Amino acid sequence: MDIHDLTRGLKQKGQSKIVMLVADGLGGLPVEPGGPTELEAAATPNLDRLAQKGVSGSMLPIKPGITPGSGPGHLALFGYDPLCYKIGRGVLEATGIGFEVGAKDVAIRANFSTLDAEGNITNRRGGSGATDRLSSEEALPRVEKLREVSVPGVEIFVEPVKEHRFVVVFRGEGLGGRVCDTDPQRTGVPPLEPSADDYDSQRTAEVAGKFVAQARKLLAGQPKANGLTLRGFSVKPALPSYEEVYGVRAAAIAVYPMYKGLARLVGMEIVGDPGSLEEEIDVLERVYRHFDFFFVHFKYTDSRGEDGNFQGKVEMIEQFDAIVPRVEALKPEVLIVTGDHSTPAAMSGHSWHPVPTLLVADHCRPDACRHFGETEALSGGLGHFEAMYLMPLALAHAGRLAKFGA
Amino acid sequence: MDIHDLTRGLKQKGQSKIVMLVADGLGGLPVEPGGPTELEAAATPNLDRLAQKGVSGSMLPIKPGITPGSGPGHLALFGYDPLCYKIGRGVLEATGIGFEVGAKDVAIRANFSTLDAEGNITNRRGGSGATDRLSSEEALPRVEKLREVSVPGVEIFVEPVKEHRFVVVFRGEGLGGRVCDTDPQRTGVPPLEPSADDYDSQRTAEVAGKFVAQARKLLAGQPKANGLTLRGFSVKPALPSYEEVYGVRAAAIAVYPMYKGLARLVGMEIVGDPGSLEEEIDVLERVYRHFDFFFVHFKYTDSRGEDGNFQGKVEMIEQFDAIVPRVEALKPEVLIVTGDHSTPAAMSGHSWHPVPTLLVADHCRPDACRHFGETEALSGGLGHFEAMYLMPLALAHAGRLAKFGA
Repeated sequence: MDIHDLTRGLKQKGQSKIVMLVADGLGGLPVEPGGPTELEAAATPNLDRLAQKGVSGSMLPIKPGITPGSGPGHLALFGYDPLCYKIGRGVLEATGIGFEVGAKDVAIRANFSTLDAEGNITNRRGGSGATDRLSSEEALPRVEKLREVSVPGVEIFVEPVKEHRFVVVFRGEGLGGRVCDTDPQRTGVPPLEPSADDYDSQRTAEVAGKFVAQARKLLAGQPKANGLTLRGFSVKPALPSYEEVYGVRAAAIAVYPMYKGLARLVGMEIVGDPGSLEEEIDVLERVYRHFDFFFVHFKYTDSRGEDGNFQGKVEMIEQFDAIVPRVEALKPEVLIVTGDHSTPAAMSGHSWHPVPTLLVADHCRPDACRHFGETEALSGGLGHFEAMYLMPLALAHAGRLAKFGA
Repeated sequence: MDIHDLTRGLKQKGQSKIVMLVADGLGGLPVEPGGPTELEAAATPNLDRLAQKGVSGSMLPIKPGITPGSGPGHLALFGYDPLCYKIGRGVLEATGIGFEVGAKDVAIRANFSTLDAEGNITNRRGGSGATDRLSSEEALPRVEKLREVSVPGVEIFVEPVKEHRFVVVFRGEGLGGRVCDTDPQRTGVPPLEPSADDYDSQRTAEVAGKFVAQARKLLAGQPKANGLTLRGFSVKPALPSYEEVYGVRAAAIAVYPMYKGLARLVGMEIVGDPGSLEEEIDVLERVYRHFDFFFVHFKYTDSRGEDGNFQGKVEMIEQFDAIVPRVEALKPEVLIVTGDHSTPAAMSGHSWHPVPTLLVADHCRPDACRHFGETEALSGGLGHFEAMYLMPLALAHAGRLAKFGA
């Protein structure tokens, strides 16, 4: 049973407000035996105060041992079962560069590749040697060239991502998203022909075939990056909206396009165009009276973790802590602090470890936690819970869920 | 969604090794108010050291309140949802005596019973009075007699188990496993005729009918144990292999046939023929470089628990603790210590109580646990989790699971 089948039926209108502060990749690991994690090492007087007032818990992003990407990590935080709802790779890539994927779109991750005279791939990243890859500067004129491709009845978008990577979107009627990757995953062979995996995607495969043929002509004569492969064909996932499943008007405040895009997929309104955490809180204050729910995303905890920079992540957590009083001053009925997954500096990447999470509300049941951190959160009142249950907890504490059954 | 749908797609090859030490029936209960459990009473300096280095948790074998048999208990430990995958009683009984059930086999639990002149059962355990039961010594010549039964097109195996219990296996083409038990569950009536529960099992029922008819002739004239009942008809369950779902080459090291058989069902290779825990570790050392995953089974914690022998179980746990340094010396990337269920001496049997579990790995997130035991495990970093998630946790900590989604 989908948790939304419950929330959809029990949701209540109200005046209460919920703020969810998400420090991306918040959870961490010690770097020396017996040492603290990044969050435990950071001086976080404000978060510690919230931990004392509120209730903490250890949140599992997906399932034990499963490391989430940003897509599933955020879907789960938003309360959507990440094993049921999947965001296609093409849609995620488009979302990451701020391209708003629409209902009639098929989004595709594309790579420039280098082909020899026989049409066989010599470099899968558009470089000239075997390991070299195309630079972003070299990619840009090629992307612009590809915008000349024209297929009747279909609107085509070509957008650069980084280096050899770009995004292609076909917009039109009757375009299914199930087309196989054309990347053969090795060199010495030509790219595969686009082929449909179901009846509804036959037209998409035809359009893709025409796109590739014209692209090859436009790129012909280039010494490298004269071909391309297409992967991750996907359509916008059918996600029920926040309004429908929770009955809240939701706003998303983020700096990076990826998180704005993920929020948009669940029907949140993207507000403001902040460039820093301080500016995000400016936006929050400005739009506060217009929405019920606020997703505020802070990126740099994850970035420093990805860099393997323990001290840098500690500092980012301290910056994050510093804005907490401004959020508290708005007196939201429910204030949540969490992350979408762990990004331990010790691993320089996302991990499966649970994320310390806290919730402050009038009717939360406080626990013995005195600091906000991984170890204390283990014995918090929210227990060990899956991220997809955070939203029902938020709604309940906001007085926005009716009794189940009589 | 099956967790294997995730691990199958995310599994990564690698050089890392995982050792899972399973002390059967590890969990226990105090025998006096405020007293320790068997594990807490035992002196376990090595396990305590691992608890300090690693992460502990309280593992639920199946679901709260559900006491597992050895079959579901081990399936769950191996990561197979024990509510989805079932091992038939006949297959489990055959497995327990070391009979390797093959793809064309139907395995059956059989009981000698005593029939009167009208063919009605007077004793369901082959004894002469109402409560007496056949001894193992008395059963053996009867088992040998039954090996004379011959049914064209089918190979038949008859193997003793203990007392009145024996195993029958039919091997041949087109033998389904859904045949009803012939045991009427009471005396004063004849055994039931074997009858098929589905189309594919009609031939099995016919073969069983012929087997019973010939057996009755061969046993005729005996004053007791002159009849038999057949129960738990079952075929080898279709379990995906460790190689397929986890991408590891797995070895099983066990003394008792049951556990070797269970491991074989998930595609583990049975290595060595150890007769003691010391010899099991000898085998582990010898085959260590040839496999990625090692299931090492220690039986006697369960045995002493079944005997209701608290102090005996304490001693077995201390023996188990003593071999830990030899395992550590191999430097496995992931070392797990757990049990398949609890067997509290206070209950002289399996129970539903959670099993204290610990995991040591470079990227585990240590918790505050200082000793390995039921009470401390409650606040461990693995939380309260179902046994079927232990394998994903093991693989994650071994660097053998890729990120889920982008």
